[in-house]
Amino acid sequence: MSAQAARSARRGRDARRAAREQTAAVSQPYIVRNVPLTELCSDEAIEIIEANADTVLQEIGIEFRDDDEVLELWRDAGADVDGVRVRFPKGMLRQLMATAPSEYTQYARNRDRNVVIGGNNTVFAPVYGPPFVRTSDGGRRYGTIEDFRNFVKLAYMAPAIHHSGGTVCEPVDLPVNKRHYDMVYSHMKYSDKPFMGSVTHPDRAADTVSMCEILFGKDFVAGNTVCTSLINVNSPMVYDATMLGALKTYARANQAVIITPFIMAGAMGPVTPVGTVTQALAEAMAGVALTQIIRPGTPVVFGLFSSSLSMQSGAPTFGTPEPTLVLSAAAQLARRLKLPFRSGGSLCAAKVPDAQAAYESAQSLWPAALCGVNFVLHGAGWLEGGLVSSYEKFVMDIDQLGMMEVLLKGYNASTDGQAMDAIREVGPGNHFLGCAHTQAHFETAFYRSNVADNNSFEQWEQEGSRDTVERANDIVKRMMASYVPPPLDEAKDEELLAFIAEKKASFPDSNH
Amino acid sequence: MSAQAARSARRGRDARRAAREQTAAVSQPYIVRNVPLTELCSDEAIEIIEANADTVLQEIGIEFRDDDEVLELWRDAGADVDGVRVRFPKGMLRQLMATAPSEYTQYARNRDRNVVIGGNNTVFAPVYGPPFVRTSDGGRRYGTIEDFRNFVKLAYMAPAIHHSGGTVCEPVDLPVNKRHYDMVYSHMKYSDKPFMGSVTHPDRAADTVSMCEILFGKDFVAGNTVCTSLINVNSPMVYDATMLGALKTYARANQAVIITPFIMAGAMGPVTPVGTVTQALAEAMAGVALTQIIRPGTPVVFGLFSSSLSMQSGAPTFGTPEPTLVLSAAAQLARRLKLPFRSGGSLCAAKVPDAQAAYESAQSLWPAALCGVNFVLHGAGWLEGGLVSSYEKFVMDIDQLGMMEVLLKGYNASTDGQAMDAIREVGPGNHFLGCAHTQAHFETAFYRSNVADNNSFEQWEQEGSRDTVERANDIVKRMMASYVPPPLDEAKDEELLAFIAEKKASFPDSNH
Repeated sequence: MSAQAARSARRGRDARRAAREQTAAVSQPYIVRNVPLTELCSDEAIEIIEANADTVLQEIGIEFRDDDEVLELWRDAGADVDGVRVRFPKGMLRQLMATAPSEYTQYARNRDRNVVIGGNNTVFAPVYGPPFVRTSDGGRRYGTIEDFRNFVKLAYMAPAIHHSGGTVCEPVDLPVNKRHYDMVYSHMKYSDKPFMGSVTHPDRAADTVSMCEILFGKDFVAGNTVCTSLINVNSPMVYDATMLGALKTYARANQAVIITPFIMAGAMGPVTPVGTVTQALAEAMAGVALTQIIRPGTPVVFGLFSSSLSMQSGAPTFGTPEPTLVLSAAAQLARRLKLPFRSGGSLCAAKVPDAQAAYESAQSLWPAALCGVNFVLHGAGWLEGGLVSSYEKFVMDIDQLGMMEVLLKGYNASTDGQAMDAIREVGPGNHFLGCAHTQAHFETAFYRSNVADNNSFEQWEQEGSRDTVERANDIVKRMMASYVPPPLDEAKDEELLAFIAEKKASFPDSNH
Repeated sequence: MSAQAARSARRGRDARRAAREQTAAVSQPYIVRNVPLTELCSDEAIEIIEANADTVLQEIGIEFRDDDEVLELWRDAGADVDGVRVRFPKGMLRQLMATAPSEYTQYARNRDRNVVIGGNNTVFAPVYGPPFVRTSDGGRRYGTIEDFRNFVKLAYMAPAIHHSGGTVCEPVDLPVNKRHYDMVYSHMKYSDKPFMGSVTHPDRAADTVSMCEILFGKDFVAGNTVCTSLINVNSPMVYDATMLGALKTYARANQAVIITPFIMAGAMGPVTPVGTVTQALAEAMAGVALTQIIRPGTPVVFGLFSSSLSMQSGAPTFGTPEPTLVLSAAAQLARRLKLPFRSGGSLCAAKVPDAQAAYESAQSLWPAALCGVNFVLHGAGWLEGGLVSSYEKFVMDIDQLGMMEVLLKGYNASTDGQAMDAIREVGPGNHFLGCAHTQAHFETAFYRSNVADNNSFEQWEQEGSRDTVERANDIVKRMMASYVPPPLDEAKDEELLAFIAEKKASFPDSNH
């Protein structure tokens, strides 16, 4: 065997091992929920919230700042524009929103990984936005483009992650006004899953679309959605020029946006869940309707990022019950609007991936999965209120996402699933380990975690009494070592790199 | 101030501090769920399971070992008794079960702490059964009666724990055949919450009833339920003499039992959730019906302990999706039988209270809370597959139980909850921190965790970069230091102690 063949064989072996280590094999590119929805809010309360949101839109209104074009669009559409404050006659926004699709396909460069966002589907994406990264052996430091690539690679390798996401961490080592090229390119190069575009400036959104046109072809992009990008509302009740610019760019290009009220209740919204959801609904309706004014039929997601506030420290808190109530009600409202819905995933305030991190993340992920969220951002890696992308937490969280996939698939009530033959064969007082049914399902019967230690105490002690973080650190290293990039057409790769080089040379670096 | 008054004042201060540290004030002795149920199993699958359970009961049957009296009872009731194997004509058990109450009150010696088990209610109880205890500073060791008392005290102090439970840890320092006296006495003396009785021998069950008669009065016990005890099925499909003896003793005394199929799927039941639930339903129906033969109307709970099996190590696993599917379906089946339902709470396989422990526990607790479980055993303290009662995990878990209480209370959709005044007062672009509505709800708006650290990274680092376990250890120590026993009538206390002394002297110690 040549050295190259040996390397290749080793790579193959490592890749298979890494694949085995992952969650139960995922054959689908996203989850199709097959269990009934969890809906925590009564219809009566939902109707109160809808009526109140209408009142907010009509009486108080929403501000659209520093964007005369948007104000003009609203005026033309029949809204009451008073300075930057826009008020909406009752029913107007619902009428505009009616053209928004209830679900849409976001194409991936590997068509087997296309995701359908909306309906009964759930798509998991990684953490978005942290300026810092943390590893258990390297500590906490600013993120770099190498970290960014690493998280893209980890997300690519994880069957439970369906979407490559966006700012998996901020590559702080690159100039602010140019880092989007490297970020978008990394998603395109190191993964073949669908991804998100830049939103920090309208030009950067336009660059994202241009790069998509190189990757997917200009005609294809004109007719299909190839990126989904994140438009945060400046809650309470303000859209700023940056987000409006990106919104317009993507909507005009028929590319999906997620309109996301970003509410720390008590600071950017009322302290009560019903109040928070009311404000979020009003904010989201305005943004969703705006996308439909710009291009009727353009795909748009009703998003929500909601946390409580520590009334002692003023810091956001996660994994507490109030945001769960907010999330369930918002998901119900989105379904009534026939819109896809987005929320957060494995959120926490913990500084390290310890028990607090896990409790909070599980408390955030459960409602996201059970209440029927269609696009779950921050599904893996989120730490410290979103300030940190954690490598170890990333692999811990993808294990949890894999479990949610099995849970949402629900019951197998076929003859085989009923297992009556097994019960008959075994009978009272005997054990099922050796029976034909158990043997037939031995490999796949139960979700297998690669993070959890299920050994005896004695064996665990013998192996060094290692905690979850230490085991996760091993997994990160093994995954990174066995990463094999998905093939990318060389001509396209060169075209992308040439586009980036030309663009980067055309204006000076800046950190704004 | 006299030294005694100073001590008393200090005790009062400490108690108030401990109370503040606990979960959001709980005014109710149990949770009344005010959000819709999560039901993951379709009616169609539920009906298949019911029909199959009937088939199991009719064709395969259940074994009742080493108890001729029970076999005689079954024969008289019309069952087909073949050796120790009992088969049931279709419909027979459902008819017998019809006398079981759909809910019952378990009285506590402090009547404000009575719990109603069944209906829309959820009662949280601590871990049950571990032979070992663990503290972060003392490590893992066998449990003692002092540990037992400590866990009773912690459960007493925790508003989120509604029930003192039973074997909060095994007091391994006491002889097996006498430790039940000290255990039951500890619940009676160091707490005033409702509790569970001994089930390891019919005589010990009878001793429990005798002690209850001293505490509550003989007449009161004859007419009311003052303990709820745990009868595990020897799955698959076997009831043994020990459990049958305790079952008969309690049922005859009108004291509640929880009939609990104990199934590690793959070993004591089929590997599929539908198969596991089928077997559990058949097993539970037989035990529940037996209680009603013995004393129609005696309170009985449909219980279930279900875990998956690691097909690699043969060890039980927790927090995986399959037991969640089992739990939801079983809760639905119990409701169709109009029986209270019991499951596990904060279960995990982790050896230390780390991220694995928390993920697994949250994944176990969520379905217990959301799927409408009425009696949640192992709500706090469970570690290492139930081999260990962990002090730190106990306080971590009660924090989670407190959150579930808030979640299950649901939405406040009153005018105040709608918060329209706040949204009007604040308006676009401003913040809610100072508005009247926020100020009015400042103290109680959000669940406050006493375990989570929500400070900034910098502050957390300054304070020693402590993880959840270290913070929990502090809380344990503060709680133990501020424990004040609930007053107990001295005459009753003396009578209990005299009863115990007399009994203990009447037969030799033994470890069987």
